[in-house]
Amino acid sequence: MKNTTVSIIMGSDSDLPIMREAADILEDLGVVYECTIVSAHRTPDRMYEFAKTAEKRGIQVIIAGAGGAAHLPGMVASLTNLPVIGVPVKTKILNGIDSLYSIVQMPPGIPVATVAINGAKNAGILAAQIVALQDQGVKESLEKYKKDLKQMVEEKALNLEEVGYESYLSK
Amino acid sequence: MKNTTVSIIMGSDSDLPIMREAADILEDLGVVYECTIVSAHRTPDRMYEFAKTAEKRGIQVIIAGAGGAAHLPGMVASLTNLPVIGVPVKTKILNGIDSLYSIVQMPPGIPVATVAINGAKNAGILAAQIVALQDQGVKESLEKYKKDLKQMVEEKALNLEEVGYESYLSK
Amino acid sequence: MKNTTVSIIMGSDSDLPIMREAADILEDLGVVYECTIVSAHRTPDRMYEFAKTAEKRGIQVIIAGAGGAAHLPGMVASLTNLPVIGVPVKTKILNGIDSLYSIVQMPPGIPVATVAINGAKNAGILAAQIVALQDQGVKESLEKYKKDLKQMVEEKALNLEEVGYESYLSK
Amino acid sequence: MKNTTVSIIMGSDSDLPIMREAADILEDLGVVYECTIVSAHRTPDRMYEFAKTAEKRGIQVIIAGAGGAAHLPGMVASLTNLPVIGVPVKTKILNGIDSLYSIVQMPPGIPVATVAINGAKNAGILAAQIVALQDQGVKESLEKYKKDLKQMVEEKALNLEEVGYESYLSK
Amino acid sequence: MKNTTVSIIMGSDSDLPIMREAADILEDLGVVYECTIVSAHRTPDRMYEFAKTAEKRGIQVIIAGAGGAAHLPGMVASLTNLPVIGVPVKTKILNGIDSLYSIVQMPPGIPVATVAINGAKNAGILAAQIVALQDQGVKESLEKYKKDLKQMVEEKALNLEEVGYESYLSK
Amino acid sequence: MKNTTVSIIMGSDSDLPIMREAADILEDLGVVYECTIVSAHRTPDRMYEFAKTAEKRGIQVIIAGAGGAAHLPGMVASLTNLPVIGVPVKTKILNGIDSLYSIVQMPPGIPVATVAINGAKNAGILAAQIVALQDQGVKESLEKYKKDLKQMVEEKALNLEEVGYESYLSK
Amino acid sequence: MKNTTVSIIMGSDSDLPIMREAADILEDLGVVYECTIVSAHRTPDRMYEFAKTAEKRGIQVIIAGAGGAAHLPGMVASLTNLPVIGVPVKTKILNGIDSLYSIVQMPPGIPVATVAINGAKNAGILAAQIVALQDQGVKESLEKYKKDLKQMVEEKALNLEEVGYESYLSK
Amino acid sequence: MKNTTVSIIMGSDSDLPIMREAADILEDLGVVYECTIVSAHRTPDRMYEFAKTAEKRGIQVIIAGAGGAAHLPGMVASLTNLPVIGVPVKTKILNGIDSLYSIVQMPPGIPVATVAINGAKNAGILAAQIVALQDQGVKESLEKYKKDLKQMVEEKALNLEEVGYESYLSK
Repeated sequence: MKNTTVSIIMGSDSDLPIMREAADILEDLGVVYECTIVSAHRTPDRMYEFAKTAEKRGIQVIIAGAGGAAHLPGMVASLTNLPVIGVPVKTKILNGIDSLYSIVQMPPGIPVATVAINGAKNAGILAAQIVALQDQGVKESLEKYKKDLKQMVEEKALNLEEVGYESYLSK
Repeated sequence: MKNTTVSIIMGSDSDLPIMREAADILEDLGVVYECTIVSAHRTPDRMYEFAKTAEKRGIQVIIAGAGGAAHLPGMVASLTNLPVIGVPVKTKILNGIDSLYSIVQMPPGIPVATVAINGAKNAGILAAQIVALQDQGVKESLEKYKKDLKQMVEEKALNLEEVGYESYLSK
Repeated sequence: MKNTTVSIIMGSDSDLPIMREAADILEDLGVVYECTIVSAHRTPDRMYEFAKTAEKRGIQVIIAGAGGAAHLPGMVASLTNLPVIGVPVKTKILNGIDSLYSIVQMPPGIPVATVAINGAKNAGILAAQIVALQDQGVKESLEKYKKDLKQMVEEKALNLEEVGYESYLSK
Repeated sequence: MKNTTVSIIMGSDSDLPIMREAADILEDLGVVYECTIVSAHRTPDRMYEFAKTAEKRGIQVIIAGAGGAAHLPGMVASLTNLPVIGVPVKTKILNGIDSLYSIVQMPPGIPVATVAINGAKNAGILAAQIVALQDQGVKESLEKYKKDLKQMVEEKALNLEEVGYESYLSK
Repeated sequence: MKNTTVSIIMGSDSDLPIMREAADILEDLGVVYECTIVSAHRTPDRMYEFAKTAEKRGIQVIIAGAGGAAHLPGMVASLTNLPVIGVPVKTKILNGIDSLYSIVQMPPGIPVATVAINGAKNAGILAAQIVALQDQGVKESLEKYKKDLKQMVEEKALNLEEVGYESYLSK
Repeated sequence: MKNTTVSIIMGSDSDLPIMREAADILEDLGVVYECTIVSAHRTPDRMYEFAKTAEKRGIQVIIAGAGGAAHLPGMVASLTNLPVIGVPVKTKILNGIDSLYSIVQMPPGIPVATVAINGAKNAGILAAQIVALQDQGVKESLEKYKKDLKQMVEEKALNLEEVGYESYLSK
Repeated sequence: MKNTTVSIIMGSDSDLPIMREAADILEDLGVVYECTIVSAHRTPDRMYEFAKTAEKRGIQVIIAGAGGAAHLPGMVASLTNLPVIGVPVKTKILNGIDSLYSIVQMPPGIPVATVAINGAKNAGILAAQIVALQDQGVKESLEKYKKDLKQMVEEKALNLEEVGYESYLSK
Repeated sequence: MKNTTVSIIMGSDSDLPIMREAADILEDLGVVYECTIVSAHRTPDRMYEFAKTAEKRGIQVIIAGAGGAAHLPGMVASLTNLPVIGVPVKTKILNGIDSLYSIVQMPPGIPVATVAINGAKNAGILAAQIVALQDQGVKESLEKYKKDLKQMVEEKALNLEEVGYESYLSK
């Protein structure tokens, strides 16, 4: 049985409908993950504990999602040497621009690997790409995933070319 | 001799040319302060220690300045119940919009009293306004400060009206 | 019986569904407040009267909410030496970026303690933090509030870890 | 001798190098103006006095320039029924976007006629266009001004066509 | 019977639900207006004709609303010496920021008096303020309008103070 | 029978409801086009093949629509010497600002002719304008199209002037 | 001798240092062009005349550069059926975002082919790509130009790989 | 001797003064890297070749820097399964907001690990964190690097506390 290598955390359970996409794709790609809530602002001690022990627990990559003044990914990155992937969660008022700037504009010394606003799925794939450097099974899953993506587009293209855009859209 | 009631911290000594304006005005208004460097990302343990002991040391207000993905004010606010004033420091690339969003857009439960980008002077005045609620001397300093501001504008206005804008500008 | 120490004002009754969150949390934290409408643009005389007499009436902190070209918090701050907390109210067209800039970018000399767009709840907590410097009861309420926040997150985290994200979301 | 019909005010003498362009063009167009400093935040009483007496003093149009959280034009508009032209002054940090939003996004009921950031010259021309509705001399000056603008462009165009862009630029 | 002094034009009939607010308030204030469609891009000849003859037809102020790459107000301003008020109409994609920049950022020489995004009502009031400089009846209507605004706010404030925010909101 | 001269491609079939407007107008203007899906990121080999063979297949203009980090138009432009028209498709989170910047800000050497966000119809018209330089039939269709646009606006204007805005809107 | 097929116009001679890059590259690619000043706002009649006669004079493509409330490209496009390429010129205050929105966000029916802010060189190349559809010489020049670009990058890459980045930068 | 595990590429040698910071820190951390120029737009075939062979050549992480319509990181990511780190390079006109959006807003399926604008140093550290998952030497270097960062801040803090901000700044 494989070890848990990826940890998905988020600042609030309101981020879960987005962050679950990271879990879903990791599942599909055969990466074992854990998933929980860690709030930088409401549970700072829990965050310290989490970040300082992650490496010892065998975690290789941390995915952290947060919105607004999104400090979780950067603070976790300051407390560990593991690669940290940040997911800026869309906010109701500023659409996630606030989340993006709070996560991506880290000072020299403490990187956060930032993906698109609400880009939890890509966070999962990126984590899998890192895990795949040491895991042939995940590497093959990623290759298959990419091939399937390509094939899906090609089939849609063929279909569109055959039936024309009006039929395609009316389906 | 008065106690230290305001603590000015900043993420990096590169913020000091801005943050000193908070110190200067507190000095002028007769508020005793301390001033040091605390980096959320480079010295997270120091930040914990600082924030968790500030109240016990008699601090009443914390002024925290930071730039970019500016997590210091919000993280300190998460670790204390004292009022925290955040100063978004201007950044070379995004002009401090990143700092502003990282500081002002805090989630419900953990406020940061945010002032203008590079608004360290106003952070000092705001801290003094809070201290003045219990300190008659500071209250009087603030009243005098505001009167002086008003008088300075009125003198300039009078001068401009008398000499005309061309002479005024050529001085 | 406690005195009224916090005054909540807003530019229009259309801001009330947001600004009531300040009143709600102050109520919870045991801070006595008043709440009314003062428009900088439609009732400038009322605003002058309000701001110039607030301190004499025993008010310690003013919370002012406004949207668009939001002049109320800054104008009140120019007319009193009390700390003024500004709440940028979200606008239909520019999402409150206009409100935020109009409130936070005050010139040196006249600070407004700005919270997040629609951050009325945090304005209430910030006001309570200031009041708590002289009120042990409010101080204890704030400590309890923060502990409850932490506990709520920890319970959700535990639950999520136990049931998994799919069950958690399907509830 | 003509009466003073336009009043140019600004929040600070640091706005004067921009606002003088309004004075210059009014001078050229034969409109009599006054020019002074009125700060909404530092001299709120002076602003009240100014705005409430402007109409009685025979002023027809007010030009108000301000930067940052620029409340002067809107507050003056709230205190008078005269048309108020607002000039958003460029700021060092946000380039005047803050000034523009603070001036243009006025609520229903209290308009400010906003020109471009640093557009003091156009504020002067707009004031002259309003004055010209009752002043044939100013009307003729405006017509001549526009004709001269046109002619200047046409001469430059002719010159560029004749000498080619390389010679034109090397001059 | 009064003459038509204000002309309201817009780039498309899709702007009419916004622009009608200018017509409504002019009606209320006793200003005679006309209202039609003139597209800078789809009917450039009509626009030339309109702008070049407006003054001769007795028009004193033109209100022009447009959205997106909103050229109508500026082009009309280039073709007449009358004061032109521009209304940036909200757009589906960029919320009217594109309209605002296209209207307010006019080059020196050709001003457009810009109001808030969707600020057609204020455009009407501004036009009335200009007309009122020569029309005592409109002047009195404006004074009454402002007094009514103030009274309405004061009544709401009184009501809110009496019944409390919960009752006020539940109505 | 005419040759296919315009190729419409898009990064995903989710762009089709927008991109079909290019097809519709080309149809109306008598330009023969093809329409398919080519994803820069999911089918890079297909994109290479498509772009490198387009000219040989007789295509004269390529219309490419994409959203988000929209690389398709620029990458196709790098692989062909045909004129490429880029359509930034609106995105759910950033409204298409990301698409616009990714398409319009091309480096010197590789232009993309960018139209408005979601401006697929205009992309079609622009393509037709280019084709019309060698095709008298398309040229006449464009002239007729423009005349019809003008006439439609004039009819609406006449109607609005006749019935008044209230009747016009209640229809 | 070849005919003039491209017309380069700009709103002001201050745009010439940017717009000359279009002329330079057209010269290099063997396209005959003309270059002059046409201001939408200061010479609207000249603009009408220019746009309505361009096609008859044999022009195939118009390149129009303008800054701020940049109406020239869109207005010219409304007056001709030729393809119009718009160059948003960088502005001192808003960096050309105002120019970009004023040019690219055209309404359905009237396209402007927009290039990058200050992208005059690419405007020239795009014009040449359109001309090349009927001109084998220009087509070959474009192919050579692209090959040269590629070769220049490859040589730099080879050099960097050989000497290392420190030597490369110290040159 | 160690193998080359990180490849640093950039769209133009004008990006080298920024991108060298990735090389510098990798050098310091004991990671073997290569560094060259690959332009998505000017050398698309070279980019294909590079991206499709990187994995076979033993590369584990690719760092790609680009500015403006920055397609290099995303296109490389589409052509390989290795983790790709994108560095948005600051641009003269839009400060790198265009670069950031073009790199970070990738569609589902193709992630790019984005760092701050001009954040090449952090790109290097992030690459080292990934390499360190399999390389104990790099892991220790990272730990030492972080400890040194912390110590440097603490020394500065101590110094500032001892000498006061005026002496500190006058040094």
